[in-house]
Amino acid sequence: MLWYDGKLVDSVTMPFDLSDRGLLLGDGLFETLPAFNRIPFLLAPHLDRMMSASLRLGLPLDRATLENAVLALASADPSACVIRLTATRGAGPRGLLPPKDTRPLVFATRAPWVRTSAFGEAKLVTASIRRNPTSPASSMKTLSYLDNVMGYQEAHAKGADDALFLTNTGHAACTSMANLFMLNHNTLVTPPLDGNILPGVMRRFVMDTAAALGFEIKERAMMPADLTAADRVFATNSVRFITRITRIDKSAIGNRHDEAFERLSDAVADQAPGL
Amino acid sequence: MLWYDGKLVDSVTMPFDLSDRGLLLGDGLFETLPAFNRIPFLLAPHLDRMMSASLRLGLPLDRATLENAVLALASADPSACVIRLTATRGAGPRGLLPPKDTRPLVFATRAPWVRTSAFGEAKLVTASIRRNPTSPASSMKTLSYLDNVMGYQEAHAKGADDALFLTNTGHAACTSMANLFMLNHNTLVTPPLDGNILPGVMRRFVMDTAAALGFEIKERAMMPADLTAADRVFATNSVRFITRITRIDKSAIGNRHDEAFERLSDAVADQAPGL
Repeated sequence: MLWYDGKLVDSVTMPFDLSDRGLLLGDGLFETLPAFNRIPFLLAPHLDRMMSASLRLGLPLDRATLENAVLALASADPSACVIRLTATRGAGPRGLLPPKDTRPLVFATRAPWVRTSAFGEAKLVTASIRRNPTSPASSMKTLSYLDNVMGYQEAHAKGADDALFLTNTGHAACTSMANLFMLNHNTLVTPPLDGNILPGVMRRFVMDTAAALGFEIKERAMMPADLTAADRVFATNSVRFITRITRIDKSAIGNRHDEAFERLSDAVADQAPGL
Repeated sequence: MLWYDGKLVDSVTMPFDLSDRGLLLGDGLFETLPAFNRIPFLLAPHLDRMMSASLRLGLPLDRATLENAVLALASADPSACVIRLTATRGAGPRGLLPPKDTRPLVFATRAPWVRTSAFGEAKLVTASIRRNPTSPASSMKTLSYLDNVMGYQEAHAKGADDALFLTNTGHAACTSMANLFMLNHNTLVTPPLDGNILPGVMRRFVMDTAAALGFEIKERAMMPADLTAADRVFATNSVRFITRITRIDKSAIGNRHDEAFERLSDAVADQAPGL
């Protein structure tokens, strides 16, 4: 199901200007979030993030339009779903410079949410692509997503579930679709927002939930060796919630402190009504 | 004018599947080249580069289709034009992994070629974004082009014509749309194909032309200070040919050895019939 120009339609094929800069240059943004019982989960921080990124890109978006698109798709049916919201800089003349009278294109789609994707497990392999902290595409969810696609493809070709991306200083950054955490006793560590990673909505939500439960939270760079030595490692993603990492390359990852991890997972799940 | 599904049409608005991975993930490739008197200039190396990149991406393209699209647009009218050829991985299900039965989408557009864009001059400012040698998007002309867009926008906001991109070791790499050369006496130096830059079609053509004229050619990393000390600096681009760089940030660039530079520029122009 598609939201387009204020209307819901069943087909995802629409008349489209092929000079759209989202298509030609990856010039745009997106967000992905689940909805349960017609209610989008953590909609406000997703819209905050897209609006904040749109300011960095100089892409004029209307927050009410974005919100209406997501709410219309969520309300259409009570079944659990995943909503993807896409905003491009719209059509433009030849060349890299955006037109002065930018008219962004906004559309959104709805797909079924799959229960088995949430609170699962994953094996990672280290990606050959590294994050670039100077690229806006590293810290915003932009339509120039090919590094993530290629990292994910590489991981699947090697029999893993996802890729571990490193920074160019060799620190663990994120996966192709999720932020990373390690848990040691009562302490959670996650990489800082230094330009290498997306400011994940689920990352923030897990940090806030963990703080309320009395965990100590540290935003600190971590090496792959820190992860393989940790009690637990997990990844956070808005649609998959918390994914326990069981393996990184040839190293099995710790499975200790079950009770702390379960307490955190349960607290996160409890705050998603209808999950 | 648009080439789409084997036909030429005047409108660029077409029925389009909004789940196309080119649009949603920047998952695709493009090429841009001029045509004069109905003949595309350097078509074969452009097709070679796109086919080679498609192998790296695992994107099955048919070379004859690409060639037909460009030739159809070039033949439509004798006026000088710029043709942009775009190939996406086509529609896919939700998520990063490409579908097994990928059906790429190919289309191409034609726009007027502007004579004043060729053999011109440009002022550069150093971009805050650096190139990432581990990213496929740095060495292929992919639809994930946002770094280039943002660098170009930044340069224009600062009153310059284009951006100078550095590598993460601080070497001069390229501009947002062109390869870089410096000329010292009879020696041309250009950065190596080390993953940071596109293997430019005009870069190769200029190197071959210069070699035939007796210039010495070196592919070697160069620092910004090397450029500001050079006799001449120029950028190469398939549509703009050779652009003399007159300024980088606050440094005026050398304008010495006029005769060598003119000889090279003339030899390049002479090989583009109808230019």
